[in-house]
Amino acid sequence: MAASSPHKLLSIGTKIVAVGRNYAAHAKELGNAVPKEPVLFMKPTSSYLQNGGTIEVPNPLQSLDHEVELAVVIGKKARDVVELTAMDYVAGYALALDMTAREIQSSAKSAGLPWTIAKGQDTFTPISAVLPKSMVPDPDDLELWLKVDDEVRQRGSTKDMIFKIPFLVSHISSFMTLFEGDVILTGTPQGVGPVRVGQRISAGITGLVDVHFDVGRRQTRHVGV
Amino acid sequence: MAASSPHKLLSIGTKIVAVGRNYAAHAKELGNAVPKEPVLFMKPTSSYLQNGGTIEVPNPLQSLDHEVELAVVIGKKARDVVELTAMDYVAGYALALDMTAREIQSSAKSAGLPWTIAKGQDTFTPISAVLPKSMVPDPDDLELWLKVDDEVRQRGSTKDMIFKIPFLVSHISSFMTLFEGDVILTGTPQGVGPVRVGQRISAGITGLVDVHFDVGRRQTRHVGV
Ligand SMILES: [Mg+2]
Ligand SMILES: [Mg+2]
Ligand SMILES: [Mg+2]
Repeated sequence: MAASSPHKLLSIGTKIVAVGRNYAAHAKELGNAVPKEPVLFMKPTSSYLQNGGTIEVPNPLQSLDHEVELAVVIGKKARDVVELTAMDYVAGYALALDMTAREIQSSAKSAGLPWTIAKGQDTFTPISAVLPKSMVPDPDDLELWLKVDDEVRQRGSTKDMIFKIPFLVSHISSFMTLFEGDVILTGTPQGVGPVRVGQRISAGITGLVDVHFDVGRRQTRHVGV
Repeated sequence: MAASSPHKLLSIGTKIVAVGRNYAAHAKELGNAVPKEPVLFMKPTSSYLQNGGTIEVPNPLQSLDHEVELAVVIGKKARDVVELTAMDYVAGYALALDMTAREIQSSAKSAGLPWTIAKGQDTFTPISAVLPKSMVPDPDDLELWLKVDDEVRQRGSTKDMIFKIPFLVSHISSFMTLFEGDVILTGTPQGVGPVRVGQRISAGITGLVDVHFDVGRRQTRHVGV
């Protein structure tokens, strides 16, 4: 089967596996220990938002936290792959935001409950177009940045990731099969914080791509009433 | 767009949203409070296992816990649907097992971490063929059962679900868009417990469907070495 074009990959993927606490400085800023193995959680693909869209803050929240992350896009079925060949299974990269309802996540963590509502709502994964791997010679040396309005909030390098991409692909594929179009969110550098309704987020990978999102109030339009 | 045939639905779905603690007796047996709102977590569709397959116990675990559950299969895009019309978005049902690495889940709960590894590994969601809605006149009055070898371990009625199907569809669709083929696992009645390598699970919905799965040791075949 021929490989899909980069812009189609996200629409054929069926899962987002996200890594928490993959930058030591960010783990510390939230008061978390640096993990011995990756913290993994899932986001649904229904949470994607294309560049230019509006991130929706659901009632009664006043804000969501931004987390700028490098997204790794899988190019073919990967199961039990070793680190040495893991990069063969990567089709490309994207710049993604792992939007997080921090208060909901904090309550869930205290109660030993999953982060699904805190992380998985529609528009909670704004993402750029997919950059083919050939455009990204060294994914371990990319600068990620994020601004809220005109203020720089996050600026970090993928150099500082605790668990690198080949390890993540290999590790995750030892638990679950990754398919073409699936995405790994590789964690966020320090500087996460709230963004409120009416503000605007810009973010990018320096020299490669940038994205822009408005932040709005989620409107509930109940269907069928 | 014409609706997909029942047997194709699971292959086009992109997510499994699972409900925890939806039967009071099961919440109590694990020492959990009966929840005020549904506990939701996600399983990847890569964890499906068709009837007749082998559930794989990963090293170094000696067993997995079985949880027999009614799966609700979504028939069309659902976002912000109200309870009154929620059943219009249901295409059918299936019998599923929410296999759980309980020790891993317990550690994750204590640490405030997600249940992804405990719940999301390949073969951790054995599932029957999809029964079209027309075959299931009253989904709130189904007997679910599960045997390990010849011992009945679980037998319960969907009558005892705390949160009923229309509520679950409405509630989940208020957070995330459900698409055709997506699945809601509605929780397990009491009687969960370990199943070991070499044992066999049978389970069913009385009068409608039954499924059979062997339990084996997961073999790791590293690719690329
Ligand atoms: Mg994150
Ligand atoms: Mg998914
Ligand atoms: Mg369950």
